[in-house]
Amino acid sequence: MPDDRPFVSLATDFGAAYTAICAGVVHRIAPQATVLVLSDEVTPYAIAEGAMLLRQALPYLPVGVHVGIVDPGVGTPRRPVAVETGRGDVLVGPDNGLLVPAAEALGGVVRAHCLEEPEFRLPEVSTSFHGRDIFSPAAAHLARGVDIARLGPPAGDLLPLDVPAPVVRGGALTAAALYVDRFGSLILHARPDDLAAALGPLEYGTALRVTHPGGTLRATFEETYGSVTPGEPLLWVDSSGQLGLAVNQGSAAERTELRAGDTVTLRVDGKPDGDGAAGLAD
Amino acid sequence: MPDDRPFVSLATDFGAAYTAICAGVVHRIAPQATVLVLSDEVTPYAIAEGAMLLRQALPYLPVGVHVGIVDPGVGTPRRPVAVETGRGDVLVGPDNGLLVPAAEALGGVVRAHCLEEPEFRLPEVSTSFHGRDIFSPAAAHLARGVDIARLGPPAGDLLPLDVPAPVVRGGALTAAALYVDRFGSLILHARPDDLAAALGPLEYGTALRVTHPGGTLRATFEETYGSVTPGEPLLWVDSSGQLGLAVNQGSAAERTELRAGDTVTLRVDGKPDGDGAAGLAD
Amino acid sequence: MPDDRPFVSLATDFGAAYTAICAGVVHRIAPQATVLVLSDEVTPYAIAEGAMLLRQALPYLPVGVHVGIVDPGVGTPRRPVAVETGRGDVLVGPDNGLLVPAAEALGGVVRAHCLEEPEFRLPEVSTSFHGRDIFSPAAAHLARGVDIARLGPPAGDLLPLDVPAPVVRGGALTAAALYVDRFGSLILHARPDDLAAALGPLEYGTALRVTHPGGTLRATFEETYGSVTPGEPLLWVDSSGQLGLAVNQGSAAERTELRAGDTVTLRVDGKPDGDGAAGLAD
Repeated sequence: MPDDRPFVSLATDFGAAYTAICAGVVHRIAPQATVLVLSDEVTPYAIAEGAMLLRQALPYLPVGVHVGIVDPGVGTPRRPVAVETGRGDVLVGPDNGLLVPAAEALGGVVRAHCLEEPEFRLPEVSTSFHGRDIFSPAAAHLARGVDIARLGPPAGDLLPLDVPAPVVRGGALTAAALYVDRFGSLILHARPDDLAAALGPLEYGTALRVTHPGGTLRATFEETYGSVTPGEPLLWVDSSGQLGLAVNQGSAAERTELRAGDTVTLRVDGKPDGDGAAGLAD
Repeated sequence: MPDDRPFVSLATDFGAAYTAICAGVVHRIAPQATVLVLSDEVTPYAIAEGAMLLRQALPYLPVGVHVGIVDPGVGTPRRPVAVETGRGDVLVGPDNGLLVPAAEALGGVVRAHCLEEPEFRLPEVSTSFHGRDIFSPAAAHLARGVDIARLGPPAGDLLPLDVPAPVVRGGALTAAALYVDRFGSLILHARPDDLAAALGPLEYGTALRVTHPGGTLRATFEETYGSVTPGEPLLWVDSSGQLGLAVNQGSAAERTELRAGDTVTLRVDGKPDGDGAAGLAD
Repeated sequence: MPDDRPFVSLATDFGAAYTAICAGVVHRIAPQATVLVLSDEVTPYAIAEGAMLLRQALPYLPVGVHVGIVDPGVGTPRRPVAVETGRGDVLVGPDNGLLVPAAEALGGVVRAHCLEEPEFRLPEVSTSFHGRDIFSPAAAHLARGVDIARLGPPAGDLLPLDVPAPVVRGGALTAAALYVDRFGSLILHARPDDLAAALGPLEYGTALRVTHPGGTLRATFEETYGSVTPGEPLLWVDSSGQLGLAVNQGSAAERTELRAGDTVTLRVDGKPDGDGAAGLAD
């Protein structure tokens, strides 16, 4: 666990005020902690978006206690858990897949425990605000050095994140949009090796055809936004290593009207469509 | 006042940047303070929303100096005040009712002083940004241990918060929507005992009829969101102990087109309407 | 550089999560630093808005390291720089004009260096997230006391901010809207002395005619919002000393449909239009 000044981060879909209440609970129990709000604006109930944020962000944060809460099941019997990682962090949140990709990015799960011990909860636990009453107090006590095993019984296997895998078929890559970033770019659940598996090795500047539920878009594969003129679409590898569909100085989400969960299919522009054509075209 | 590392919170309707300037002023005057932005996104000019946030949040924060600014009267002669509470906090903000419910939740008002002493303001005071020039410097000096009485003369009675009380009549409860939370839920200015006074003791699962300016809604009284299927409306008791109208994994505000200040009337579904029916129906 | 507990601020157009990742990078490298997010919601790519925010805010913050990132050119050869100011701050960001007005407000540029030394970057530098990989590590190392000259070669002249100057002509002041604040007020790139040069000395209460691309608005020149009734427009001097067009308890941006970059022309109401009339009218 952390040194003199423990580090706690919070990522939620609560908005500013409720997340700040969680931060206040941590400050009250662990006044020496540095508390960083990683995000208070995850799209409500968007578990995959929150999971990708945690996976992308936590490797850059100090080793510490990281609370993630996107919790459509609050008030139902889903389990609150704490997950120790290979890097030495402890992740705190609901057992609904949210924490799993980040745990993998931080060296894997070392051990996980349920948050059951009343001593490490607030005296009164509401039915709708476990962030304040269960997760934040647990995080604060962990930051003070309480061992994860004291919080409750071992959790056993954690639930995985429920997101469709990318599909490589017929010279095309089909992938789900995981989330829309601040600039309106669509971050896809696929990586450059998926792209290479589907379309072969691609040079920057290659024109792609992107089909989606609302139509078709032409985009070039580029290293960076600035490689295309403002207003032009591009496919690039974002800073977390995932494929993204962007419009330079514009919004790919507005252009395509795509949202998280929608799927897109990528092909080299000019190559024929369809499964049967795969062998011929490639 | 606080210990080694004093705690200051800020809640405003300023947005991120202006609130952060206030935080910067505090850091400059009181570099040892921990500063938490409780909210920078209170709906502009929504005093009741800000007051409910402070009342709900501050009991969970460390004892400290808490600045609240929702101030439609900035630049007019409304008074800037500091309010010491029974718990030992000092609340800082305009005397417009904003701070009163929180002060009550923190053990009541012990003493209140006006912020008049130029020594504890910035050297230049603008007409439109008292958050930066008056409230934040006062908070920082209080956090450094300056006694509240040095800030200016006693404030006497504070102005109350101006919100209509819930009405119990004819087997119905009429209440104002105080604010809309992040999830689109309408938080009502009424509590479970108001509901029981109007409708009698209710079991979870009881169907209610909610009439509002735009129409009628059926909602069940439930302990938690998860007790109804996604998309279904419910009435529940939120984490601050107030009644709320929600849609599981949806937005009650969108469904009803209600906003803060609108009123709703709750009845047990199937019971007759109207005042005259009260004795018969109940 | 700062004392025991160095101060770092961040202002970006990244949104909450990406800005918090930058804060995390600073915390990791400089765990003793106090980190303040000044803004994570600058309008994407709006360099002038970011520049005005930094100029307005930084004089109120502690002397420290201030990162500003509004960077449409990320991934192109624009230079990342660190700029030492007369007050003793170091500003960190892209060389695109963003930092220049703030540097002037903080005592002018003392020296500026490019951020080239790999030792003060993250080990891997992405093409699209220099905030995380270049700017934040540089800021953290500066906060730890690294001399600015170790970051890279002298930068020479910095690029100026590209915004049209106010125009005084024919008894009228024409100015660009720099940005829209949280309350929907339009902050103009003009100051009271520009107004006096164009319209002569004005008393509060003077009625003005505001012409803009979408029509004409009547607004009175006032010291403060509260001087007009709710819903009425006014021209006032905002807390940063710039002219602003507001609607008391309303939104001037909604009323006029103006956006950053649009221009407005202000005249005393009742005086004739046109260039030729200037000598006569004034």
